Amino acid sequence: MAGSPRRTAGRRLQLPLLCLLLQGATAILFAVFVRYNHETDAALWHWRNHSNADNEFYFRYPSFQDVHTMIFVGFGFLMVFLQRYGFSSVGFTFLLAAFALQWSTLVQGFFHSFHGGHIHTGPAQLLLMALLEVVLFGLNEFVLLSLLGVKDAGGSMTIHTFGAYFGLVLSRVLYRPQLEKSKHRQGSVYHSDLFAMIGTIFLWIFWPSFNSAPTTLGDGQHRTALNTYYSLTASTLSTFALSALVGRDGRLDMVHVQNAALAGGVVVGTSAEMMLTPFGALVAGFLAGTVSTLGYKFFTPILESKLKVQDTCGVHNLHGMPGVLGALLGVLVAGLATHEAYGDGLESVFPLLAKGQRSATSQAMHQLFGLFVTLIFASVGGSLGGLLLRLPFLDSPPDSQCYEDQIYWEVPGEHEDLAQGPLRAEEPETRA
Amino acid sequence: MAGSPRRTAGRRLQLPLLCLLLQGATAILFAVFVRYNHETDAALWHWRNHSNADNEFYFRYPSFQDVHTMIFVGFGFLMVFLQRYGFSSVGFTFLLAAFALQWSTLVQGFFHSFHGGHIHTGPAQLLLMALLEVVLFGLNEFVLLSLLGVKDAGGSMTIHTFGAYFGLVLSRVLYRPQLEKSKHRQGSVYHSDLFAMIGTIFLWIFWPSFNSAPTTLGDGQHRTALNTYYSLTASTLSTFALSALVGRDGRLDMVHVQNAALAGGVVVGTSAEMMLTPFGALVAGFLAGTVSTLGYKFFTPILESKLKVQDTCGVHNLHGMPGVLGALLGVLVAGLATHEAYGDGLESVFPLLAKGQRSATSQAMHQLFGLFVTLIFASVGGSLGGLLLRLPFLDSPPDSQCYEDQIYWEVPGEHEDLAQGPLRAEEPETRA
Amino acid sequence: MAGSPRRTAGRRLQLPLLCLLLQGATAILFAVFVRYNHETDAALWHWRNHSNADNEFYFRYPSFQDVHTMIFVGFGFLMVFLQRYGFSSVGFTFLLAAFALQWSTLVQGFFHSFHGGHIHTGPAQLLLMALLEVVLFGLNEFVLLSLLGVKDAGGSMTIHTFGAYFGLVLSRVLYRPQLEKSKHRQGSVYHSDLFAMIGTIFLWIFWPSFNSAPTTLGDGQHRTALNTYYSLTASTLSTFALSALVGRDGRLDMVHVQNAALAGGVVVGTSAEMMLTPFGALVAGFLAGTVSTLGYKFFTPILESKLKVQDTCGVHNLHGMPGVLGALLGVLVAGLATHEAYGDGLESVFPLLAKGQRSATSQAMHQLFGLFVTLIFASVGGSLGGLLLRLPFLDSPPDSQCYEDQIYWEVPGEHEDLAQGPLRAEEPETRA
Repeated sequence: MAGSPRRTAGRRLQLPLLCLLLQGATAILFAVFVRYNHETDAALWHWRNHSNADNEFYFRYPSFQDVHTMIFVGFGFLMVFLQRYGFSSVGFTFLLAAFALQWSTLVQGFFHSFHGGHIHTGPAQLLLMALLEVVLFGLNEFVLLSLLGVKDAGGSMTIHTFGAYFGLVLSRVLYRPQLEKSKHRQGSVYHSDLFAMIGTIFLWIFWPSFNSAPTTLGDGQHRTALNTYYSLTASTLSTFALSALVGRDGRLDMVHVQNAALAGGVVVGTSAEMMLTPFGALVAGFLAGTVSTLGYKFFTPILESKLKVQDTCGVHNLHGMPGVLGALLGVLVAGLATHEAYGDGLESVFPLLAKGQRSATSQAMHQLFGLFVTLIFASVGGSLGGLLLRLPFLDSPPDSQCYEDQIYWEVPGEHEDLAQGPLRAEEPETRA
Repeated sequence: MAGSPRRTAGRRLQLPLLCLLLQGATAILFAVFVRYNHETDAALWHWRNHSNADNEFYFRYPSFQDVHTMIFVGFGFLMVFLQRYGFSSVGFTFLLAAFALQWSTLVQGFFHSFHGGHIHTGPAQLLLMALLEVVLFGLNEFVLLSLLGVKDAGGSMTIHTFGAYFGLVLSRVLYRPQLEKSKHRQGSVYHSDLFAMIGTIFLWIFWPSFNSAPTTLGDGQHRTALNTYYSLTASTLSTFALSALVGRDGRLDMVHVQNAALAGGVVVGTSAEMMLTPFGALVAGFLAGTVSTLGYKFFTPILESKLKVQDTCGVHNLHGMPGVLGALLGVLVAGLATHEAYGDGLESVFPLLAKGQRSATSQAMHQLFGLFVTLIFASVGGSLGGLLLRLPFLDSPPDSQCYEDQIYWEVPGEHEDLAQGPLRAEEPETRA
Repeated sequence: MAGSPRRTAGRRLQLPLLCLLLQGATAILFAVFVRYNHETDAALWHWRNHSNADNEFYFRYPSFQDVHTMIFVGFGFLMVFLQRYGFSSVGFTFLLAAFALQWSTLVQGFFHSFHGGHIHTGPAQLLLMALLEVVLFGLNEFVLLSLLGVKDAGGSMTIHTFGAYFGLVLSRVLYRPQLEKSKHRQGSVYHSDLFAMIGTIFLWIFWPSFNSAPTTLGDGQHRTALNTYYSLTASTLSTFALSALVGRDGRLDMVHVQNAALAGGVVVGTSAEMMLTPFGALVAGFLAGTVSTLGYKFFTPILESKLKVQDTCGVHNLHGMPGVLGALLGVLVAGLATHEAYGDGLESVFPLLAKGQRSATSQAMHQLFGLFVTLIFASVGGSLGGLLLRLPFLDSPPDSQCYEDQIYWEVPGEHEDLAQGPLRAEEPETRA
């Protein structure tokens, strides 16, 4: 099928090289020509200015509906890739999101742990874990934003790093050596991967809204969204390039496209609000897509075999590493802040610098300390959570029943043994 | 598979008890602490105030696009659960929605009847039924809103109650005792249930937009959306709790999650605009989710076997009972209205009270009479519709062909007998 | 199954006749009663006026997020109908859209060629083709809008006609007589058609946003969106009518519904901004749906067998013919422009007319010349593109491997031979 060896080698390198070439050329053009323009009428895209009739279309103010679409549709469907765990993925995300909304905590934090930890747990355990995590999440956020004066609009630290390591440590505590009994169910099937792409695409579209939601109305949100878009486009290109490069016969892997393409949104979570520059956003996104794709390929297997962390969804690749990278990028960009570069915007991005209470270097140190605090909160919290979920009165699924909807859901017949499985409609109590 | 009897009992109760406990605790906290705050800057969420830079994100003004997404995507896909009726569900919703848009009647009304009645009818019959129903819907709405001065922003009466009972009575008139010949096609399959969840989730996300669309800009829409969100979250929790409680081995039923979780949006259709209070919204939503789930489990089978109403989609559980409950809730909340509670807002919510032309008790009586009128219109209209559709020149599918796309659609080969079914592409006239 | 011949004939005609009847009645009512109303408070729908509290809901300003949803979700999933090419459709659309976003070219142009041409090409070739096409697209747009003063807000010419004929000519140059070796993979399966409907519906919902995005804020965008909605509803009705009319036993074809229903958005791309009138929009949409459906049925097979153009997705039916029709409609409506009909709006729609530099007839001639220029650019560009892609160092899939994900993607086991296909999870390098 693959033709001669030379053709195969050619195919393997064609897409990666072209992606790298185009991305390199664009990045150079961006570095040379593209500057932020504070005049809205000349910006590439901009908020619709209600006071003048202007013909460009615009980036919509981020709204609750956007973020809900991102969380319910995005997260819900991204996890449907597991061939026999689709009901649980969509259903439990739905339950948790509704619960979180009541608790006024419209945050992604614990969805990311859910990502990592949902394989071993049932819905009751998830609700309990959410309770604990929401409290710790709020505490960590309070320490960072209010006490330390750290900036983290898109949550590289407070959301992604915290959520990822909370979940990974929890997964370590709950480690089940016998889980390979459920391995055969961990795969995806063709249509479950297509469902997951619905999730990926909605997350991609609304990530700029998400990152810019907490920033200052107007220029601040505009810059944040712009940087997030650039970073996402670069991580998408680098994911395709790297996936083809490391794949068998130069083939792309749907897991990489579903996840690593989003790493660009994570990596600018802290710095998108700052004067990252479009060129900086491209470089950051490209790096994040690369690290994330390589993580799926080479690091996830080690994580399980050596470190005994079962990371089914690759939360470490999408949220963990890009989150830490994003925090460090924030340290760098904050350390380079000057009154000249920010102008009047310094007040809203770095109020303590604007008031002269802190130097740029001091702000950078605070950012770095914020990352450290987050990692501590996440590790201690994840350990506590794991111990809590191991309490004997909480019923866990047996090792042989993980990744399986049937333990929590009535599943239509097709899915069971086709020979004997009755269709749901034949049971008198449903839809009859 | 299920382990010892005690573990099974434990599993059955774990999720329901935890849901009830958390919901109870939240409701108490809401009752004690949460009040509407008319200052936008202190509200939990609020309209983006364009005149000041404020860092919260906001609830987007409801728009045509939101409501279209809800109707086309939401309704279209919610009904895809039928394993061999997916094309008809999405396709005919599409046709009807396009037709309704032309008739300037962007209302859900007849989609709900369609819900209930679509199983026995073809597209031509549906268009005729839509014509009749749109006229009656408009007439009923005119009597309620303009003549009786009834309030019903989200349409608990005019949309849900009217649509549900119109459809159910119509289904009664069209009753086919031989329909069990088509029963085997009435089930869902794994992927069709996942498609249906796309519908559920889009309906959930945009229900607050839908309920608040016709209310007064600003505070009015804000309060309506807020109440709808709270009610939806509570109905989602109670649906999961009750579904696990009544399910075999404590298992959740996808039908309940797909439908009853939305009952919270229906039940506050009349009162979300009023001073329902967040606590009241939680209680209403919880009750609606409970009634709806129990309806699927216990009442739908009776509806068919005893009352000869074939309610395939459970329109009585999602729209009928929650709609009537919502109308009665509106009676209660209107009867409790005072000048103190509403302040300046009384003018927009209850203009006749503000002008002194009607007392709160009188308004409540008018609301109750509105429900009565709606039930009359729906019953008489549904009967007329049923008789119309039984006219001999209108071609109905035979009993053995219901719930089957093939009677109206060219269906790709896989779906027919796999041994002989040709792929569509092999026929010269399509996409060749 | 089909009953007596008379019943079959009845069924075949029932839906078409009813659609035609209803559409005819509505069109007549529109012609007699519906006029544009420049007072927002009386308009059927309108922009939310922020300065007064008004109870209608509104059409949302078109935004980046809307257009992204349209392109990523809409285009991505519309093409998933190919049963074994879903990953490529969603994945490559994703890659190209991300790339195009970086190049600041948020245009549909080359997606349409992609539509037509993607069957023979790999991702590297697509990126190269995109590079060429974006340059030519920009050049063509500059000549039309800036040099010739042509109006084309929704891009009937610059986007649809250009994209379609660029792709079709390219497909002609790349013609592969042996492609029937891949024919068996060109069909759809039941669930792939449902995925495609997700794409169709999102395109439908956001097409009014897309067409109105570049027009003047306020009245201009309002009128453009309104006309686009009317045209889309009419093309949806005519597609159902014609599809049933020409279908075997009066059955509907999912391919028609997925595509021709959208032709109404294409056909008003030039004239929606102008005083097309709602009646005109209905007629245009109905015509476009008719032409497009008949094109799928009768012209596409000829296109392949006689003209050697392989148009797998029917780009000629959805974009080509409706695009040219739309351009000609623009010629007509521009030629009828008067100062009376447009009032103050003439300045924004036809600035050269308002300034007295051009007569209506002269504007119409310029519009016609614009169409001619577009066809030249598209043909020459498509030929160049085809020759470029035939360069020997670019690796094309062999004839027997077209329409097949496996050549570019790791595909989960189910999709390969079920007997031997290993699940992805069993390979150590992924998600393990």
